[in-house]
Amino acid sequence: MIEESVASLAERIGGQVVGDGSVRITGVADLRAAGPADLGFVRDARYADLVASSRAGCVLVRAPLEHPVAQIVVRDPAAAFARVAQVFHPLPQASRHDVHPTAVVDPSAELQEPVRVGAHAVIESGARIGAGTVIGSGAFVGPGVQVGEDCVLQHHVVLHEGTRLGNRVVLQACTVVGSDGFGYARDGAEWVRIPQLGGVVLGDDVELGAQCTVDRGALGDTRIGRGTKIDNMVHVGHNCVLGEDCLLAAFSALGGSTILGDRVTFGGHICTAGHIKIASDVRVGGNSGIIADIPEKGDYMGYPVLPKGRWMRAMVGIGKLAERGSPRRGAGE
Amino acid sequence: MIEESVASLAERIGGQVVGDGSVRITGVADLRAAGPADLGFVRDARYADLVASSRAGCVLVRAPLEHPVAQIVVRDPAAAFARVAQVFHPLPQASRHDVHPTAVVDPSAELQEPVRVGAHAVIESGARIGAGTVIGSGAFVGPGVQVGEDCVLQHHVVLHEGTRLGNRVVLQACTVVGSDGFGYARDGAEWVRIPQLGGVVLGDDVELGAQCTVDRGALGDTRIGRGTKIDNMVHVGHNCVLGEDCLLAAFSALGGSTILGDRVTFGGHICTAGHIKIASDVRVGGNSGIIADIPEKGDYMGYPVLPKGRWMRAMVGIGKLAERGSPRRGAGE
Amino acid sequence: MIEESVASLAERIGGQVVGDGSVRITGVADLRAAGPADLGFVRDARYADLVASSRAGCVLVRAPLEHPVAQIVVRDPAAAFARVAQVFHPLPQASRHDVHPTAVVDPSAELQEPVRVGAHAVIESGARIGAGTVIGSGAFVGPGVQVGEDCVLQHHVVLHEGTRLGNRVVLQACTVVGSDGFGYARDGAEWVRIPQLGGVVLGDDVELGAQCTVDRGALGDTRIGRGTKIDNMVHVGHNCVLGEDCLLAAFSALGGSTILGDRVTFGGHICTAGHIKIASDVRVGGNSGIIADIPEKGDYMGYPVLPKGRWMRAMVGIGKLAERGSPRRGAGE
Repeated sequence: MIEESVASLAERIGGQVVGDGSVRITGVADLRAAGPADLGFVRDARYADLVASSRAGCVLVRAPLEHPVAQIVVRDPAAAFARVAQVFHPLPQASRHDVHPTAVVDPSAELQEPVRVGAHAVIESGARIGAGTVIGSGAFVGPGVQVGEDCVLQHHVVLHEGTRLGNRVVLQACTVVGSDGFGYARDGAEWVRIPQLGGVVLGDDVELGAQCTVDRGALGDTRIGRGTKIDNMVHVGHNCVLGEDCLLAAFSALGGSTILGDRVTFGGHICTAGHIKIASDVRVGGNSGIIADIPEKGDYMGYPVLPKGRWMRAMVGIGKLAERGSPRRGAGE
Repeated sequence: MIEESVASLAERIGGQVVGDGSVRITGVADLRAAGPADLGFVRDARYADLVASSRAGCVLVRAPLEHPVAQIVVRDPAAAFARVAQVFHPLPQASRHDVHPTAVVDPSAELQEPVRVGAHAVIESGARIGAGTVIGSGAFVGPGVQVGEDCVLQHHVVLHEGTRLGNRVVLQACTVVGSDGFGYARDGAEWVRIPQLGGVVLGDDVELGAQCTVDRGALGDTRIGRGTKIDNMVHVGHNCVLGEDCLLAAFSALGGSTILGDRVTFGGHICTAGHIKIASDVRVGGNSGIIADIPEKGDYMGYPVLPKGRWMRAMVGIGKLAERGSPRRGAGE
Repeated sequence: MIEESVASLAERIGGQVVGDGSVRITGVADLRAAGPADLGFVRDARYADLVASSRAGCVLVRAPLEHPVAQIVVRDPAAAFARVAQVFHPLPQASRHDVHPTAVVDPSAELQEPVRVGAHAVIESGARIGAGTVIGSGAFVGPGVQVGEDCVLQHHVVLHEGTRLGNRVVLQACTVVGSDGFGYARDGAEWVRIPQLGGVVLGDDVELGAQCTVDRGALGDTRIGRGTKIDNMVHVGHNCVLGEDCLLAAFSALGGSTILGDRVTFGGHICTAGHIKIASDVRVGGNSGIIADIPEKGDYMGYPVLPKGRWMRAMVGIGKLAERGSPRRGAGE
């Protein structure tokens, strides 16, 4: 069990202790369920009553509350809570070198000790795995693939030749990186495969959900920038370039050569046509379809996407159309 | 080969025999293709001619037909046909204990005999597998995972720690249960991972298609109720709670904390925003996007969803808009 | 390193040499990046300046250019470039028989030498693998499955019993073929599984991306015709029949019994309801939803799909609705 004092946690997250900094904390919890060794949080003073009725040993707050409980004052209690939760629930990390006897590791692969390699994993010739990295059961690391330090490849992940991962990259189960891009030239009725010769580069702190696919570039590389987080079942087509700190929810499909700036956020089930360019700080609502560039930051929605306010007015208009669309109003409902 | 008499089949499905109950049946077939040892069905008396021209040895009917063939009278011939088909084509089941020598099974895992475990499967410490269960090649069962009786985990399924399956749960190939939910707190430009501490509970008779993902809860559990059936490539976000006997077609994506009542049906390619609540007996047509609660049962469609009749009228209106939208009517078609 | 003369390449692609046919070529490149041993291409004479400034050793052209570089004149330079690229970057192919010692191959499986079988792959009883085929790590080939010659099954592919592949079929990583179709009969509140008894047939030169699923038929087979190419995360439901030379982009979901003619092309994120019939040479734009047959060739788009020109006019109309939808025009944008 991990145990830390309130004072030590405050130092980690750059907060100020109010009250008893020597209280020992062993976990995080919702304030309603918290016990005396748990740390909780409130977004602001409106939730002071919640603190008063809680048994938590420490509370993260934006400003000190009139209450005897140990508090840590931070700019953003929700983000600080996430950081404290990581202290008690860290990602898997290799603390001692442990390669399962059923793993197949090519003698020319370079494993910087310590790494952990699960049962039936395969690591091909010339691959390089950084220290601290954990490789799940049945994962496949192709020839020459580079994996940084403290990465987590969950079970059954596939990294094809030409893939390079930064540090602290997390890939959930069954995600495939470096599959062939979807490139064909039409020749009469026939589709002629265009060999896909590029690779994939994932920056530091990139995290991909389960069952994602990131295709290798046709000539250059497909790239995902530092800190970008991607949900389950997202497809990133060949030669896409994603900026830093983007957030893409499940089922987004980025057509080939899509370019995202930094801090772009996508709701779920979004599709972009190929060769689309989207500016930094654009936010697109779920279920939208993007078939033209979005050169200005802001909120967008719809298919094809409109600025969000305009889309919502259009939806009001469509609702009214329904009332004019048929003389048998109400029928079928 | 499995062989049963008409009388015995009638007893299994609670039907009444008309004609010769001693006829031996060895399979099911479409009436047009059926032979004398096959059982077929007709929905109602309008298809009596089909029975007259068929060579089938037995026919499931809603009411007795004037025809010498052996018949079993049941309330719902289509459902009864499915039940009889299961007699002749049962799911894989472990009838004798058989763990492939290449499987890696932790000594602390508890396998209730008989179970079948395929080549290269991995079963971690403290996992518990019920009798009759079949685990496919390369499947991964994480630490402490509980799998009920008579389950089928197809090849390459991944069950992460914290997953609990009821009895007769069927998971098609490559489905992942218990992957980390998509939870991040924004801190300036940076996304801070929120550790996902909950599990996943799948009730009895839940069936998931291939390549699905069901994320673990952030604090509590993600839950899928008894008898719910889910098609391929469906994503269930963290903390979703699905009721009983729901039916979700391919490519549905349930955002985090979506709550479905009982008997909800979704067509394919449906997306729900997070924290949506949908009442029992709601039916949503394919390709819809749901961004607000649906508190009343009924048929819905569209993006955002409308009651189906209203959506259809809106579509008529949009078709008319097309005629007004441009002076160059017809161009481009 | 593969090396060929310009004359030899011209013969392969049915082109005519202009200039020095003895120039040795070892690769392909964009003309801007090409060196003296690289072959590049231009679509037509408008790009003659690009040729003049390039260091390429050979250029594919539609008509001879006034320039001393070696040229090959072909009808379609882009398609010819793809074919030449395949010469220098062929698909993996088994040139000598090589079954990894950790692979589990049933003695009754028939492997036509040479084939290559990766680590931890599983080949079940009665399966048949054609010469030249490469099977990746952890792939699963079920009982009785037939795989033709020169196929590539990437890592973790799953082929269930009842699957038959033609020659030169390429399946990217984690694709599942032959999973159970989504068939249930309703019986009161309960869904009764309809056993799925058919198989899957993939024609010669079919290529599927990563993480696809192709379900087995309910009674007959699910079929994909010769030369059809499918992107990542596409779902083909039970009893679909796809024609030849179709092209389906990522995230398309074909509901059960969808029938596509030949040369149908789908943009990404397209959904078809079940039992839809689509004529040859139909092209549907991304993000569309198809809920009725499309009996005539042409371009379509939208949800529900309209002829593309009509859909674009409807979108203009919806944009105008937005301006009428609210008195607070501009608010929220």
